[in-house]
Amino acid sequence: MSTLQNQRVVLASSPDGELKPSDFGLETDAMPVPGKGELLLETIFLSIDPYMRFWMRSEKSYNNPIKPGDLIVGATVSRVRQSQNPGWHEGEWVLAFSGWQRFAISNGSGLRRIDPAIAPPSTAVGILGMTGFTAYAGLRNVGRPKPGETVVVAAASGAVGSAVGQIARIQGARAVGITTGAQKLAYVKDELGFNAVIDYKAPDFAARLTDAVPDGIDVYFELVGGPIWDAVLPLLNTYARVPVVGLIADYEARAGEQAAPDRLANTMGQIMGKSLTLRGFIQTEFADEQLGDFLREAGTWFADGRLRHREHIVEGLENAPDALIAQLKGGNFGKMLVKVGES
Amino acid sequence: MSTLQNQRVVLASSPDGELKPSDFGLETDAMPVPGKGELLLETIFLSIDPYMRFWMRSEKSYNNPIKPGDLIVGATVSRVRQSQNPGWHEGEWVLAFSGWQRFAISNGSGLRRIDPAIAPPSTAVGILGMTGFTAYAGLRNVGRPKPGETVVVAAASGAVGSAVGQIARIQGARAVGITTGAQKLAYVKDELGFNAVIDYKAPDFAARLTDAVPDGIDVYFELVGGPIWDAVLPLLNTYARVPVVGLIADYEARAGEQAAPDRLANTMGQIMGKSLTLRGFIQTEFADEQLGDFLREAGTWFADGRLRHREHIVEGLENAPDALIAQLKGGNFGKMLVKVGES
Repeated sequence: MSTLQNQRVVLASSPDGELKPSDFGLETDAMPVPGKGELLLETIFLSIDPYMRFWMRSEKSYNNPIKPGDLIVGATVSRVRQSQNPGWHEGEWVLAFSGWQRFAISNGSGLRRIDPAIAPPSTAVGILGMTGFTAYAGLRNVGRPKPGETVVVAAASGAVGSAVGQIARIQGARAVGITTGAQKLAYVKDELGFNAVIDYKAPDFAARLTDAVPDGIDVYFELVGGPIWDAVLPLLNTYARVPVVGLIADYEARAGEQAAPDRLANTMGQIMGKSLTLRGFIQTEFADEQLGDFLREAGTWFADGRLRHREHIVEGLENAPDALIAQLKGGNFGKMLVKVGES
Repeated sequence: MSTLQNQRVVLASSPDGELKPSDFGLETDAMPVPGKGELLLETIFLSIDPYMRFWMRSEKSYNNPIKPGDLIVGATVSRVRQSQNPGWHEGEWVLAFSGWQRFAISNGSGLRRIDPAIAPPSTAVGILGMTGFTAYAGLRNVGRPKPGETVVVAAASGAVGSAVGQIARIQGARAVGITTGAQKLAYVKDELGFNAVIDYKAPDFAARLTDAVPDGIDVYFELVGGPIWDAVLPLLNTYARVPVVGLIADYEARAGEQAAPDRLANTMGQIMGKSLTLRGFIQTEFADEQLGDFLREAGTWFADGRLRHREHIVEGLENAPDALIAQLKGGNFGKMLVKVGES
């Protein structure tokens, strides 16, 4: 460890529309020093997630908005470099929420130990962490697929989407993925074992989706928003369930810039006419009660090869803004991580 | 009973936009004659309900669309005039689904006896029937208000809305109604005992609604759709529940005629960001399991004066189209009924 200073990525200005590199700033600070009872954490991996863009929205922010000057938040895989707390020792791997910086001080609260003997530590923010648990909790609490029912998910090669389809399959449902690009299409079908995969850029996308769900859609796991919803909505069955977890296509729309016509009345009409359930959630809602179940079950599925994952690793803290910008355009292939420190 | 012919109101043409009298036709048929095992029912009251307009939509119909030439459907309070079925006798009051006609044949299936000694028979399609049960089931299964939580409902002087607020109060929640017109505003506040009532035609409606819900909205019982939703949405609390039962303001919109801008992305964003639940339903989904509970509980509330109702009675089958047209414009004051036969 030769670094004697900390580096942090902050929000330079609230983005309007598409996120740009100039919306971020890279700052250098004094190296933080842990006090009594505290730890110095070194960030090894940053988890890059679409919700970060949602939290940067200036016009309407729901929870903990990221404002100009603020550190960009996010989960991290970190190591304890110094400990003034008898509960933790140097070298331990931990799941933390340090945000986009090389070093952080923690008093230990909210940290979770990662055992690197069980799985690579980076999985603690991915398939065996927040993203895998988001898929699991959305299916368990909202989607509730019954064996033989049809589950559809877009961004199907991504961190959450790939877990949704695989867990749905493990639970006996049919999984239909939506993505684009020859590599991702092949990965979802052949490696992840979805029953079908549809290219949303195909000119006959809606017809292909219809053909892929001969019994309609019972669960649509909403990660993307935008025009895919218009193709999904008429295919939803009576009593279909829609966990609403991400709306990546909508995050960068400018206020008031959404195109006519108004699609709300049709959506509400279908909610009423087909007795649909739409339910937004953030995985933290269910973590206290169900995270233990998930780690146990998903650990087994991961170990026996039924739950696969793929990581897209970008090197260097200074490249975190570009990594998020690329992810928002669908430029990642698998769980997006930034490797910050040496492990 | 001097009538020797039946009269029926049918759909003459699928309405486009606002419903007009010319969308209906009045037909005269031969008097139906019950066969072995059958009953002749005389319609005493027709229940007039907004969902009827929804079922007439030509572009997208979800369940049992009413097509040109079809009898207009609906629940009725009827009496048995002839019986060839030993299970029923002449003079009995029954809840039926005869539709908009003076007489109908039934084999008894789906009928429910009404005891006129307990409550006026017309309540069997109103406060102690489908409309009351819609309010009850929506609160019990979707809204689930906890004591002290805030329940908001529009069309608050109407059949379902008035029951929603009163049942919410009985269950210990705060009830805030939305309606318009001095008489209805006073009725909702003073006679029904809502905690607050707001005039949606007031120029500062959104500000008044905000003031009326200092702790935000936990349950919005959606009966109306349209612009009221835009005022409610930002006031919904995290984990708020929205039973979606009616969208009266949207039923008469012409296909593709909804005004810009697109409000869907904002609604979906709030569903996600505030972990909202939107759930459409039709009361029949819960009737097998919960109608008995409702009749028992609501019967008590009705008898002891805690559950009040008001009827808006129009005379004559031939005036049923005007009654529905008026209801869709908010011209009713209480449960809309058409009195067809002599009781």
